[in-house]
Amino acid sequence: MSAGDTHTLAEAVLSGSRRALARLLTRVEQAQPDAQDALSFLFPHTGHAHVIGITGAPGTGKSSLVNALAKAYRQQDKTVAIIAVDPTSPFTGGAILGDRIRMQDLSGDSGVFIRSMATRGNLGGLSRTTRDAIRVMDAAGFDIILVETVGAGQSEVDIVRTAQTTIVVEAPGLGDDVQAIKAGILEIADILVVNKADRPGATNTLRALKTMLELGHPTSRTQTTHHHGQLMAVEKPVTDTEAAFWLPPIVETVAVTDTSGTRGIDNLQQAIASHQAYLSDGPARAQHEYQRIEIELYERLQQTLIHRLRQQLSPDQLRQVIDRITARELDPQAAVDLLLESPSLEKTSSDVLQLPLSGS
Amino acid sequence: MSAGDTHTLAEAVLSGSRRALARLLTRVEQAQPDAQDALSFLFPHTGHAHVIGITGAPGTGKSSLVNALAKAYRQQDKTVAIIAVDPTSPFTGGAILGDRIRMQDLSGDSGVFIRSMATRGNLGGLSRTTRDAIRVMDAAGFDIILVETVGAGQSEVDIVRTAQTTIVVEAPGLGDDVQAIKAGILEIADILVVNKADRPGATNTLRALKTMLELGHPTSRTQTTHHHGQLMAVEKPVTDTEAAFWLPPIVETVAVTDTSGTRGIDNLQQAIASHQAYLSDGPARAQHEYQRIEIELYERLQQTLIHRLRQQLSPDQLRQVIDRITARELDPQAAVDLLLESPSLEKTSSDVLQLPLSGS
Repeated sequence: MSAGDTHTLAEAVLSGSRRALARLLTRVEQAQPDAQDALSFLFPHTGHAHVIGITGAPGTGKSSLVNALAKAYRQQDKTVAIIAVDPTSPFTGGAILGDRIRMQDLSGDSGVFIRSMATRGNLGGLSRTTRDAIRVMDAAGFDIILVETVGAGQSEVDIVRTAQTTIVVEAPGLGDDVQAIKAGILEIADILVVNKADRPGATNTLRALKTMLELGHPTSRTQTTHHHGQLMAVEKPVTDTEAAFWLPPIVETVAVTDTSGTRGIDNLQQAIASHQAYLSDGPARAQHEYQRIEIELYERLQQTLIHRLRQQLSPDQLRQVIDRITARELDPQAAVDLLLESPSLEKTSSDVLQLPLSGS
Repeated sequence: MSAGDTHTLAEAVLSGSRRALARLLTRVEQAQPDAQDALSFLFPHTGHAHVIGITGAPGTGKSSLVNALAKAYRQQDKTVAIIAVDPTSPFTGGAILGDRIRMQDLSGDSGVFIRSMATRGNLGGLSRTTRDAIRVMDAAGFDIILVETVGAGQSEVDIVRTAQTTIVVEAPGLGDDVQAIKAGILEIADILVVNKADRPGATNTLRALKTMLELGHPTSRTQTTHHHGQLMAVEKPVTDTEAAFWLPPIVETVAVTDTSGTRGIDNLQQAIASHQAYLSDGPARAQHEYQRIEIELYERLQQTLIHRLRQQLSPDQLRQVIDRITARELDPQAAVDLLLESPSLEKTSSDVLQLPLSGS
């Protein structure tokens, strides 16, 4: 595809073509070189959608909740794009299919666009691809973008944190392990949902969440540190002002495949609207966006640096070093120092990795 | 702590001091600068332990299984170290405590050493810290190191892949989401366990796993690609020879808090021993180790590069660029190119990032 074609594709996305949108998303997901041109072209048209991340442990009913939420927004004439990040391998499509079948009743509606992204076999890095996909959907004019992750690991949390409003979904009766995961993701929640609120144990789950919130908020956030090395876990302390203004509400919902049994979605929408208003009114929105972009920048810098390094390192050189490590002659950090510090390389390093000086 | 003290500490670890081991692990976890010296000192003493990773979705009973496995190894007079990676936040210790209470009956035994590591607030990057902790325990002389991750995200999978033998635990009756996760982690399994095999639905779980294995192995592995940019997901194709020799066995277990009700652990130990023998006999062990070290090297290179970059970038410069992105004047990739390519920086870049030339 030539640059001209990419341009045409991006313009078609802007003019509302669903077909162009799907094609461009595929190129983004495959990390096609020309996808970046399209993304650059579309970037000035982004920033209008409200991006809502939905995460939580397996078994909490996130997919049904996303489904119900999408329908509710459609009833308010808002257009909705859904990105479902599925931790499936590329060779088994079962789960993706299963989830999407539940969304069948949305599929005839041109105001809804659903995209699944597999976590494995993803060539651009998952949080980067998700971010780029969100931007393409944003430029395509969707009012609401729902990003759903199945799973509760750190990478899923990172993906959800690309959203403006993060919803953490809980459900009663999921056992000890799930409680453990809950503690980890609780601090990223802007809104907490107890789904399956009609099930036994819902009152206990609600009480446990309240206790955790009281223990953990807002002090919890200020305990996390901002550091180098592990980019994906970067978390800025929340200022006192900000923390004082937003305490995550807990919303009870019942989201089931049968729409008539669904309840609490209106309350959830209200909570989302409140969070959106909170973001728009104060300095919080700019602060949130600044942090999101900073994380993204470092992630991209890291990817670019390592990409260049990989191009520069010869397979022989790498094998030599690894063999020395295997023989316990060299420890891994010494190997890194050796690879990066070797004085024989100075003469060309400036062509490879150019770094800015402060105040340039 | 001076370099001399670190040296003393590392020597005490080698001579079997549990107190020194615990102290050094804390320094490793906190990414203390002197921890690297100790790791370099200990590195030549590593490579003896058999490292077993245990992962799976929440609710599968991994902790009880690890507990039962540790006891069984102790009965064979093998020393056992356990690293439990808990996705808890630093401010709520509930889950860690809960899991460890189940292991109470092991705690009086000096041949067992248990260490929990929190996924959040971890300063050195979790897979790096886990790898380093494994090396310290290995140098301390443990025969078996069990690495347990609660959760099923990509980061947890990466951690488990630092092991020589990877066990993926399943259990009946965990619903759709769990099935989805299963597909993603199935391809990393050397051994599959159906835990809670006495529960209703165990036969179905077993059958589903068998089908997935038939569909996905060994072809599945060769479909994954080795690429730059997203280091943690790097996976080398398995050669035909290797794939032909090891097909993951499926072992049924019942691991419960009440030891008398436990069964299937002997079969699991046999499966582990078979895998260990398979690794030792052929070229597989060297190949596995080569791949693990390659992944580690790139991860460390990446961390080191980004660390240097962070030191080099001034806050003003970063803010300027982010402000331009926020204003939609500059897209994120253009910003990265700008930061890395700026010609005014060439003169000092060689001091900052030195890269090797091939064949140097």
